[in-house]
Amino acid sequence: MSETTPHWLTKRADLSPDKNAIEFEDGNSISYLELFHRSQSYAKKLANLGLQQGDHIAILSTNCVEMIQTVYACSYLGTVVVLLNTKLTINELNQQLIDSDSTLIITSESFTKSEFEVQKISYNELESVSEKQNSIMLNEEICLDDIFTMMYTSGTTGFPKAVQQTYGNHWWSATSSVLNLGLHENDKWLIPLPLFHVSGLSTMLKSVIYGMPIYVLEKFDVEKVHDAIMNRNVTIVSVVTVMVQRLIKRLGNNHYPYDFRCMLLGGGPAPKSLLEEAKERNIPVFQSYGMTETSSQIVTLTPEDALKKIGSAGKPLFPAQLKIDHNKNEPNQIGEIIVRGPMVTRGYYKRTEANDKVFENSWLHTGDMGYLDEQGYLYVVDRRNDLIISGGENIYPSEIENVLVQIDGIEEAGVKGIPNEEWGMVPAAYIVCSKPIEMKVLDAHLEKYLAKYKRPKEIHIINELPRNAANKLVRHRLGK
Amino acid sequence: MSETTPHWLTKRADLSPDKNAIEFEDGNSISYLELFHRSQSYAKKLANLGLQQGDHIAILSTNCVEMIQTVYACSYLGTVVVLLNTKLTINELNQQLIDSDSTLIITSESFTKSEFEVQKISYNELESVSEKQNSIMLNEEICLDDIFTMMYTSGTTGFPKAVQQTYGNHWWSATSSVLNLGLHENDKWLIPLPLFHVSGLSTMLKSVIYGMPIYVLEKFDVEKVHDAIMNRNVTIVSVVTVMVQRLIKRLGNNHYPYDFRCMLLGGGPAPKSLLEEAKERNIPVFQSYGMTETSSQIVTLTPEDALKKIGSAGKPLFPAQLKIDHNKNEPNQIGEIIVRGPMVTRGYYKRTEANDKVFENSWLHTGDMGYLDEQGYLYVVDRRNDLIISGGENIYPSEIENVLVQIDGIEEAGVKGIPNEEWGMVPAAYIVCSKPIEMKVLDAHLEKYLAKYKRPKEIHIINELPRNAANKLVRHRLGK
Repeated sequence: MSETTPHWLTKRADLSPDKNAIEFEDGNSISYLELFHRSQSYAKKLANLGLQQGDHIAILSTNCVEMIQTVYACSYLGTVVVLLNTKLTINELNQQLIDSDSTLIITSESFTKSEFEVQKISYNELESVSEKQNSIMLNEEICLDDIFTMMYTSGTTGFPKAVQQTYGNHWWSATSSVLNLGLHENDKWLIPLPLFHVSGLSTMLKSVIYGMPIYVLEKFDVEKVHDAIMNRNVTIVSVVTVMVQRLIKRLGNNHYPYDFRCMLLGGGPAPKSLLEEAKERNIPVFQSYGMTETSSQIVTLTPEDALKKIGSAGKPLFPAQLKIDHNKNEPNQIGEIIVRGPMVTRGYYKRTEANDKVFENSWLHTGDMGYLDEQGYLYVVDRRNDLIISGGENIYPSEIENVLVQIDGIEEAGVKGIPNEEWGMVPAAYIVCSKPIEMKVLDAHLEKYLAKYKRPKEIHIINELPRNAANKLVRHRLGK
Repeated sequence: MSETTPHWLTKRADLSPDKNAIEFEDGNSISYLELFHRSQSYAKKLANLGLQQGDHIAILSTNCVEMIQTVYACSYLGTVVVLLNTKLTINELNQQLIDSDSTLIITSESFTKSEFEVQKISYNELESVSEKQNSIMLNEEICLDDIFTMMYTSGTTGFPKAVQQTYGNHWWSATSSVLNLGLHENDKWLIPLPLFHVSGLSTMLKSVIYGMPIYVLEKFDVEKVHDAIMNRNVTIVSVVTVMVQRLIKRLGNNHYPYDFRCMLLGGGPAPKSLLEEAKERNIPVFQSYGMTETSSQIVTLTPEDALKKIGSAGKPLFPAQLKIDHNKNEPNQIGEIIVRGPMVTRGYYKRTEANDKVFENSWLHTGDMGYLDEQGYLYVVDRRNDLIISGGENIYPSEIENVLVQIDGIEEAGVKGIPNEEWGMVPAAYIVCSKPIEMKVLDAHLEKYLAKYKRPKEIHIINELPRNAANKLVRHRLGK
């Protein structure tokens, strides 16, 4: 039976009208009632632009209140929100706009000059649209089976595909997190991560579902995060590994306040030495494992186990299931991680083949490798076949390889991640050429088709790529 | 889409094996892992008795660990649990056993001598059943759409009917409560109420869903509840009005510990003077409103509003909706309370007519009267047409009237509640007789067909019942 709930923001504005919903670094804040009114106003403006239920609307935006209003406005209209990564090139963005069947792109002011292949409107332009219309029906209820958001991920094929997330996926993600981390009256969750990624978005939704203020930074800045924890009553913060390192360094010999209770670490395995340092310093780092397809964390180390099981991502959250996909049912055997649960996407948009490949009886094959110890704790040993995680962003080698071989003279390309002090990992490319390549041409091509963080930081010309007996590229042998 | 989750107890035993699940007044406790093993053992024993998925199994029991094991054992087998009120007469019990299509009744030791119309087994007898069988399949997952429990309620018709509660109803009830009350690492919830009522049962299920120990008393005892709050680290307790009165008296000039954070008050409206006294004494009483049909509380006064809105039951929990069913959409207008949400029953067992009457587009007509103030806070003014709430038990006048008119010589009967210092309300009967009635006969009849708490404490012989123009009994005019 498909469940319906009252619209989350309408309900929260009724339950906690005057409570802070969002706090910003400039000291400003917005209450739930104000967020409700602004979102409804945006919804009416969008309806006056002709948008209606079922339309796909893309958002390209840095973190700001207008972005949050736009997401909720879309849900009032019943349109699907396509969240775009601001670091992408115009080519990558247009590819995703077309693929997602978006009819409009809404942008923050910094993107007003970009040339998109669909109609564009900035927040400023949207503000000046009238909200008067006779027959606008805004959703008063949410059907949990409906698609709410889409986000792009590339995976092993190298072609970005949109993960569809239902309202139910987000709801279950929020409630399963609360059953693990608890919920205190004084909780305030800091988002130093982009809202277009699932980690940021899911926390933004938790704010409304929990009635818990969030503190939103435009982007990660070690000084600002440090200040928020020390002086702004933040109790939980979502981070990626590289941020933990910088925060510990910044903390020096100080201690975080007593009420600061969780540094939720996602986006790839953390070095054991870092976790041990956090433990010694009494910093409550909780390792977790999740992905866009699971609508944020699906495995988290509980408070009780955080110190006993260093290096583990924990156990699957209450309503989730996890198995290692190998023939043996033994502990400590590495295999592919497969997951199931009501927070798991029902599939990629318009990708029947990919969906057939990764779903099996509603179990999702993550492509990540790991094992369970004797007590059933998950240890992730390798993210999705050669996935490179660079400062929290996922980079798929195959996507870069596809772009490289488009260059005349590059016959074959292989990409792997190499360690980098600042970002954790960065991509390095190995190319086989049939004629000399001009670096200027190469750079221009990469700049056009790849976001900066995806561009190889090293390019090596080699004679042939390492391949296995089945002639498959063996990326970890590149450069060896 | 019907959601599945891992079996709740299996999952909790995996996540928090050694944590206390249940604590008892004798100082004993049981961990989640132990509760899991015991419940699985009971499930295998029940399977060996021939019980299987889809069967209906009744439980007649005072609060004890065996009762909790039996409920979970049934869920491992996929059988529906029918929870019976221990205060009922053998006639009432047999009526419910037959109506619910129960094939077995499992009882605590005090009921071993009762004569039931279905097969009976006591916990002691069950213990001696073998659990060895080759082909027992215990559920590893729970489908939220499946019926888990049934409990009887009488309503306006006077004929008890079974409220069906799905796993999903209980799940949503538990998660919606957490979004209102929060969840702390040190939470421990005291149950001084019978587990066969929804208030007790829902807390028992919260224990497993939240990973939160519960402290279970066999029955309400003011000394034991007082001691649990003062000395046993209880943070939340579920109570009915009469208990609050006695607890405040018992507290005297003392104060509850700082960590005691919630006295959740259900089972009917509380006198304003009592709530004000609690406020003055700094006792965190949270008024709530709910019923068997809503799988426990559906409206609760939030911590922020508890002191501002004394006398109100609060606002509907996050995923619930509530309206007052009258033509005007104005505040402060009394009308029937109607509710909707994923914790609301899908209907009474085998009662098509009653279901058609109370459900309208998945809105449940509660029969209770109330109003919403300007801010949308609910004030319950009258429970379900003439419902008498006596020490937390619901008594339906029509049920007593039906029993009275079965006596030869009683032509008509009317029952209403009258104030009583100890129980809040007790039933009083008004009868119209065609010939003299022997009190001995009357008493014997009532004793046979009505649980003690339902028997009229006063019986008045009158000439005619007060009726309105449509010839309908007007109960509030009885005795006036």
